[in-house]
Amino acid sequence: MNFKFSIDRAVQQLLPVAEKNNIQTVWDRFKAQQPQCGFGKLGVCCRICWKGPCRVDPFGNGPQRGVCGADAHTIVARNLIRGIAAGAASHSDHGRHIAMALFEVGEGHASAYKIKDEAKLQQVAKRLGIKTDGKNLQQIAKEVATVSLDDFSRQNAKVPCQWAVSTMTKERAEKLSNLGVMPHNIDAAVAEIMSRTHVGCDADPVNILLGGLKGALADYTGMYLSTELSDVLFGTPQPSVTSANLGVIKENAINIAVHGHNPLLSEIVCDAALLLNDAAKKAGAAEGFNIVGICCTGTEVMMRHGVPLATNYLSQEMPILTGALDAMVVDVQCIMPSLGVIKECFHTELITTMPTTKIPGATHVEFTEEKAMDAAKQILELAIEAYQRRDPKRINIPQYKETAVVGFSAEAIIGALSKLNPEDPLKPLLDNIVNGNIQGIALFAGCNSTNVVQDQNFIEIAKRLAANNVLLLATGCGAGAFSKHGLMTQEATLKYAGEGLKAVLTAIGEANGLNGPLPLVLHMGSCVDNTRAISVAVAVAQKLGVDLNKLPLVVSAPETMSEKAMAIGTCAVSLGLTTHLGTIPQVTGSKVVTEILTDKLKDLVGGYFLVETDPEKAAEKLLSVIEEKRKGLNI
Amino acid sequence: MNFKFSIDRAVQQLLPVAEKNNIQTVWDRFKAQQPQCGFGKLGVCCRICWKGPCRVDPFGNGPQRGVCGADAHTIVARNLIRGIAAGAASHSDHGRHIAMALFEVGEGHASAYKIKDEAKLQQVAKRLGIKTDGKNLQQIAKEVATVSLDDFSRQNAKVPCQWAVSTMTKERAEKLSNLGVMPHNIDAAVAEIMSRTHVGCDADPVNILLGGLKGALADYTGMYLSTELSDVLFGTPQPSVTSANLGVIKENAINIAVHGHNPLLSEIVCDAALLLNDAAKKAGAAEGFNIVGICCTGTEVMMRHGVPLATNYLSQEMPILTGALDAMVVDVQCIMPSLGVIKECFHTELITTMPTTKIPGATHVEFTEEKAMDAAKQILELAIEAYQRRDPKRINIPQYKETAVVGFSAEAIIGALSKLNPEDPLKPLLDNIVNGNIQGIALFAGCNSTNVVQDQNFIEIAKRLAANNVLLLATGCGAGAFSKHGLMTQEATLKYAGEGLKAVLTAIGEANGLNGPLPLVLHMGSCVDNTRAISVAVAVAQKLGVDLNKLPLVVSAPETMSEKAMAIGTCAVSLGLTTHLGTIPQVTGSKVVTEILTDKLKDLVGGYFLVETDPEKAAEKLLSVIEEKRKGLNI
Repeated sequence: MNFKFSIDRAVQQLLPVAEKNNIQTVWDRFKAQQPQCGFGKLGVCCRICWKGPCRVDPFGNGPQRGVCGADAHTIVARNLIRGIAAGAASHSDHGRHIAMALFEVGEGHASAYKIKDEAKLQQVAKRLGIKTDGKNLQQIAKEVATVSLDDFSRQNAKVPCQWAVSTMTKERAEKLSNLGVMPHNIDAAVAEIMSRTHVGCDADPVNILLGGLKGALADYTGMYLSTELSDVLFGTPQPSVTSANLGVIKENAINIAVHGHNPLLSEIVCDAALLLNDAAKKAGAAEGFNIVGICCTGTEVMMRHGVPLATNYLSQEMPILTGALDAMVVDVQCIMPSLGVIKECFHTELITTMPTTKIPGATHVEFTEEKAMDAAKQILELAIEAYQRRDPKRINIPQYKETAVVGFSAEAIIGALSKLNPEDPLKPLLDNIVNGNIQGIALFAGCNSTNVVQDQNFIEIAKRLAANNVLLLATGCGAGAFSKHGLMTQEATLKYAGEGLKAVLTAIGEANGLNGPLPLVLHMGSCVDNTRAISVAVAVAQKLGVDLNKLPLVVSAPETMSEKAMAIGTCAVSLGLTTHLGTIPQVTGSKVVTEILTDKLKDLVGGYFLVETDPEKAAEKLLSVIEEKRKGLNI
Repeated sequence: MNFKFSIDRAVQQLLPVAEKNNIQTVWDRFKAQQPQCGFGKLGVCCRICWKGPCRVDPFGNGPQRGVCGADAHTIVARNLIRGIAAGAASHSDHGRHIAMALFEVGEGHASAYKIKDEAKLQQVAKRLGIKTDGKNLQQIAKEVATVSLDDFSRQNAKVPCQWAVSTMTKERAEKLSNLGVMPHNIDAAVAEIMSRTHVGCDADPVNILLGGLKGALADYTGMYLSTELSDVLFGTPQPSVTSANLGVIKENAINIAVHGHNPLLSEIVCDAALLLNDAAKKAGAAEGFNIVGICCTGTEVMMRHGVPLATNYLSQEMPILTGALDAMVVDVQCIMPSLGVIKECFHTELITTMPTTKIPGATHVEFTEEKAMDAAKQILELAIEAYQRRDPKRINIPQYKETAVVGFSAEAIIGALSKLNPEDPLKPLLDNIVNGNIQGIALFAGCNSTNVVQDQNFIEIAKRLAANNVLLLATGCGAGAFSKHGLMTQEATLKYAGEGLKAVLTAIGEANGLNGPLPLVLHMGSCVDNTRAISVAVAVAQKLGVDLNKLPLVVSAPETMSEKAMAIGTCAVSLGLTTHLGTIPQVTGSKVVTEILTDKLKDLVGGYFLVETDPEKAAEKLLSVIEEKRKGLNI
């Protein structure tokens, strides 16, 4: 077994268990797929119609056009924006689900849910231009949900998505509208991409990529409303101390992992576990139920309830290999179908819950908002049954876990800053950016990928940036990496932060009674929560009177893998942000597309993709971008 | 040059011209792509995330799962339904465009358009449950448009698309609703497919394919409203005599081909050509403007205005090679990007008109409903300019054209039958099905594909079925094939129809003053117009008191190629119809998916895919299906 697959020691401990049990993990499958198709890697394989598949010879000797006449530029651009469409559809389906739940709450249905953050509801209503005077919470909830659902249904192409235009700088909204890439309806933007990439439609790579930007902004709309309405229903995250990595699984508890992305069910599972904890104890588990998280559903409950995180995307198979995971409950996105195979070798119950995500081998407990608590209870019962089947001899829980201070929503960050300056909370942040204590801000986002050593580049780039006084934010599997590796701690700040950054994080920490600094990396949530960081950036930009592309703010996604990440990345670029990718995007078969994404978009929207697989060099390049932006602001 | 590429003699005449001019045609590019990727052909290549591309070894020696753990069944099913999503999005974008235009007309805008078929508007309104008493046409138009747009925007998942449920048998609507595959919103169904096929979502091939059925029914909804609202705006087709194949291009005229699928612009181009015909004559073209059609935009104007058809999909490059095509105006779908290259070798002006379909090398004249006539005039001016550049020495118009009697909308067919029985027009049709004069009905649909000899299988299967007294209907490129090859004539009926069929077609023809039979194949419109045939079938089924799957009605798509065809085919199967594919669908890498599509769907919805590449055998199998259905009806 080659431990270069992951720097996560818990993974390293369990890979031999997989080998011994003849279980194929994601790394085995990756190895078995080598060599992967070079045409696909370059983006020049087209399977859009059944005259194909076609491929363009990247060396120029073979065919340069597909059967229909599409060249590499058309093919690469089409493939990319279909990915963006799928990403936007995924985030937005999640957002729609939350909006529908809020609507039900507004209607007085869905008794398992309530408005947990009234202030946030009021704030969202105000931002969306909804009058709230004299209305009760339910009415406001319903109106907010309705306006949010309008962003999925509006047919008038002249009216943009309200969640998009109301949350970015005015300048940015105008720029994007003038480019014709502001969506009027999320689903329509997805359908438009699918339609324009049908055989014999859009063949102009520039026009196709503009369609991709529109899709990415639909993604932005869906992400934004998803996060904000989740906060309304489940509470806006506030800092709390928890832990991460497989050591959070307890031998004496019934361990249930919640996995996926949508908090609608996992929230209720947490509630139900508290209610029914005695049943678990009665079944013999001294510590009752132990809910742990995987991937972004994990992050959702980690941010709001301090539920510990078992692991992030790439190592999602490992919790089963501990022999102590009794149930894994999954909702949507990034759930490996392999789980249905691997769980056969152990006692773990794998439970799917969403009608559009079923997995062969899993038990399906259909989740509906109306009967959420019933589903949660049924899941706990299945976990208790599985616990009875547990073989103590096979338990192998790697004793690795790190403390993680999590829960840094935009509100939490502003709240912490307000302890330094109650009247003008952003001022201390801005002052420290101007005086150079903070050189810039980096948001780490995106997936894990087998293309690189798991977690490694996140950690290396972050340490380098921190040493250079860059404030670090993280979401999704990036945040998972940092929490597993101890970078969301005060100790990490003391160890890795440059002097300026350390001083600022310490001043904020002390003002908030933490007896020390804020953690080195601020956990801003799941991968759908990137808009939390954007909202802070927009507030800063507005205060400075500049657009987002002027800020010393960069995005880094060292292990980009999913179509959601393609959408998020393109969205960040559309907003004007330099966005680092640490794996090679599958577009390099087209010089035109590659140049647009990595260069020409800069003139159009201010943002562009910076591709660099070497973490040292990536950090250097990101620091250069920050320096250049600082110069642009004369600071 | 290998003439086996096409049985179209006009194509055969022009391929040497391409060779001489060093022009690559679709057949050259197909040849250059050989051998095509076997993994892609089998559907087992996955490019859904950037951990891939992954592929499953069809021989079982290499990897059986992708990096995430998806197996061949998951991968094949996901690839297929993404195609269906793109098909549904394409048809429906077209439908939305028409609905928006109708809305504008209802609002009193879009002066180039008006309600051409008031009776149809009333009939559509009635079917959709819109009260029309005391309302003027504009009001009704606006309400019909609004209800149609609701099918794109409805967020309540419990209310199905109205255009779907109001147009099929009650039994069928219930069956599909119970299966959970009835869409509530076209765009939402497309987005749902993209979302559920994202990495780590739906992995259950059965569940995934059910998602595909839902997408196909979204396609049905979009197709249906597209056709019906086009009839409202542009008139419901009635039989007329025109001609087809490249001989319709005139040396002494300014030849303009309209190409694509959406009639919104081509209708106005036809109007404008009449208005400005003197300008063309003044420019030296004795016969003025000569509008000809390509692909389905061609079919739209052919059905409504008797505009001759130059050619169908696969040979769309040929009109340029005649050296006499002055302009080709394209809208959306099935427009080869190669046109932008080939037109460089001739004087032809290639004009794109839709914001989501641009082609490198083309001149873009943006079309909007508000300024439709301005765009049409600008296009005619560009055509006149191009005509001045025409080189008479390079003109080479193949003198092949066939008469084609076209325009058999459902209304036209019922109208023709009503001459036999004004009170009960369907009775003569039913009586003749029962007495066996007509054994059954076959609808030919779908594309052209380089995978087979162009047009050949359409013609061979049709002749065989006709000889066996099967009534033949056709749409899209199938209809294009029949019209080019003289099968939409009275002569063809006399030559190829079996005695029973000939007697019926003759009786109807005589009753309608045609001095002979109806043509052998009834042209029912473009590929979006398949619902015309469905509407007749539903009327027949309702009259018999059975569901669609009981009828001796089959569908044949011998050259399926596009994602729209994947959607249409799945839609036909969902409606209960046996649907023949004459090329191998890219699903055979999964036994599970293949079995579901070709067999198990029969139990679920009554319809299934019948795959047979040999035209003789295909005809035999379709005849067996018809015989079996007749037995089921005890006739």
